[in-house]
Amino acid sequence: MVQGASRGIGLEFVRQLLEKSDKGHVIATCRNPDGATSLLDLKKKFMERLNLLQLDVTKESTIEAAATSVRESYGSLNLLINASGILSIPDVLQPETTLTKVEKSSLLLAYEVNAIGPVLVIKHMWPLLKVGGGSGTERKHAVVASLSARVGSIGDNGLGGWHSYRASKTALNQLTKTISVEFARKKDPIVCILLHPGTVDTDLSQPFQRNVPKGKLFTKEFCVQSLLSIIDNAKSSDNGKFFAWDGQEIPW
Amino acid sequence: MVQGASRGIGLEFVRQLLEKSDKGHVIATCRNPDGATSLLDLKKKFMERLNLLQLDVTKESTIEAAATSVRESYGSLNLLINASGILSIPDVLQPETTLTKVEKSSLLLAYEVNAIGPVLVIKHMWPLLKVGGGSGTERKHAVVASLSARVGSIGDNGLGGWHSYRASKTALNQLTKTISVEFARKKDPIVCILLHPGTVDTDLSQPFQRNVPKGKLFTKEFCVQSLLSIIDNAKSSDNGKFFAWDGQEIPW
Ligand SMILES: NC(=O)c1ccc[n+]([C@@H]2O[C@H](COP(=O)([O-])OP(=O)(O)OC[C@H]3O[C@@H](n4cnc5c(N)ncnc54)[C@H](OP(=O)(O)O)[C@@H]3O)[C@@H](O)[C@H]2O)c1
Ligand SMILES: NC(=O)c1ccc[n+]([C@@H]2O[C@H](COP(=O)([O-])OP(=O)(O)OC[C@H]3O[C@@H](n4cnc5c(N)ncnc54)[C@H](OP(=O)(O)O)[C@@H]3O)[C@@H](O)[C@H]2O)c1
Repeated sequence: MVQGASRGIGLEFVRQLLEKSDKGHVIATCRNPDGATSLLDLKKKFMERLNLLQLDVTKESTIEAAATSVRESYGSLNLLINASGILSIPDVLQPETTLTKVEKSSLLLAYEVNAIGPVLVIKHMWPLLKVGGGSGTERKHAVVASLSARVGSIGDNGLGGWHSYRASKTALNQLTKTISVEFARKKDPIVCILLHPGTVDTDLSQPFQRNVPKGKLFTKEFCVQSLLSIIDNAKSSDNGKFFAWDGQEIPW
Repeated sequence: MVQGASRGIGLEFVRQLLEKSDKGHVIATCRNPDGATSLLDLKKKFMERLNLLQLDVTKESTIEAAATSVRESYGSLNLLINASGILSIPDVLQPETTLTKVEKSSLLLAYEVNAIGPVLVIKHMWPLLKVGGGSGTERKHAVVASLSARVGSIGDNGLGGWHSYRASKTALNQLTKTISVEFARKKDPIVCILLHPGTVDTDLSQPFQRNVPKGKLFTKEFCVQSLLSIIDNAKSSDNGKFFAWDGQEIPW
């Protein structure tokens, strides 16, 4: 399952997961499947291997409904990628350049989408991941990979700014770590990791690309290849860890 | 200014700040000054040295009003202690023991009070702290000390659970670090630190005290003595750091 698959990195995960093998099912979730033209194009090509489901991380009922649908169709899940996320929304959310511009509404919105959202998805997919446990893959465990961001690292925060986005990703890191501890204690065959994709050429990074040094703006294709290699090689001992696209661990 | 001063650690800060010197003003803020009987008792003893102001961190208008009142009465601020915080509220907020019990409403409430609240207080007191800059104290800078918690550390999270509280304190750490970077870059004479008070005998820890090893439950008196010594000795190079009651730095 790729959650947040209408555009950007999530969409590219769906494409590569479908293309790298000629079997296996991919579930792509997004807020508005009817308007997700790129997913609908993939659907024409991959037919019953691709399943589109509606899911808005801010509406828990849609997460529950997606979990029910997956249980009824497949009974289990071996991989969950949380790719949804927001950084800026015109007239609604702007990355803060100074404390003076920090607003409660922005802090809450980023938290709801970027931190709470993926956690509620893991909560409802947990039973399916436990059953899946990596069966039918090369792994002995299911993998949950959530897209975080290097700016969510407190130790690495030398620049400041972007308060709402940073704090939401830092909280996602803590929540994922907390979940990973429970999975480990219960000996559930699930490995939970956090991924920093690098700075990737998508709608999300578009307004900020002029500050990116040459050669440091990755294509979606390169980014997802890198992240899939981390996911494919994830070991039990990686549970609860935070990796950059190149496999380096990022400090909290 | 001690923010969150009606009970517990905040109240003890007010008491010790008043008693350790025979001059200087202390501003104590709380949600309901009329019902804050311990503060009202202190007020009888310390009269015009103690100023009680109403402030609810979930209502930004009350923070702005408090800032206006401080500006009109004193024109500046040399110390801001954010002591407010919530862990459990009967029938409203329970520290989670498993992912299954994680609810959006709890995550949002803890975030609003524990992470957003102190940040909005710093936002509105910033101009006053800049003017204060430590004048009239032994320090060359004002100090902002926010009460975090060791369970907010991701690196130190070996137990799991308490998702809402943990994530809110982790986010407070990131937000404080972000603010400290801006203060440093602007060369504002303000040092921002995060404090873990230890496990302290207050209403907040009361429901969980049976798990505390003997000798590890501190009195408010001891805790606040320890934290005041960290505050009094805070150096510019401590800006953005996270200290336990014994002065040890805590990993993010
Ligand atoms: N691009 C980068 O440089 C970069 C760097 C660091 C981290 N990241 C992280 O990587 C992830 C993917 O980013 P991206 O660059 O691919 O962003 P993107 O192109 O802007 O795509 C964001 C995706 O999130 C979905 N989404 C937003 N709100 C949602 C909600 N409430 N429920 C469900 N889905 C929602 C969007 O769906 P709609 O089409 O419905 O809006 C879209 O599919 C994000 O978590 C981001 O924070 C990206
Ligand atoms: N005690 C411990 O073992 C421990 C350990 C680690 C960290 N901490 C942290 O230390 C700080 C102080 O804790 P404590 O033990 O003194 O807790 P406490 O005795 O429960 O006192 C909490 C204080 O926060 C105030 N408060 C709650 N919601 C507020 C709001 N919306 N606006 C303004 N004030 C609000 C309360 O005011 P009302 O009287 O109006 O409710 C009360 O004064 C907290 O941040 C806590 O997380 C405590």
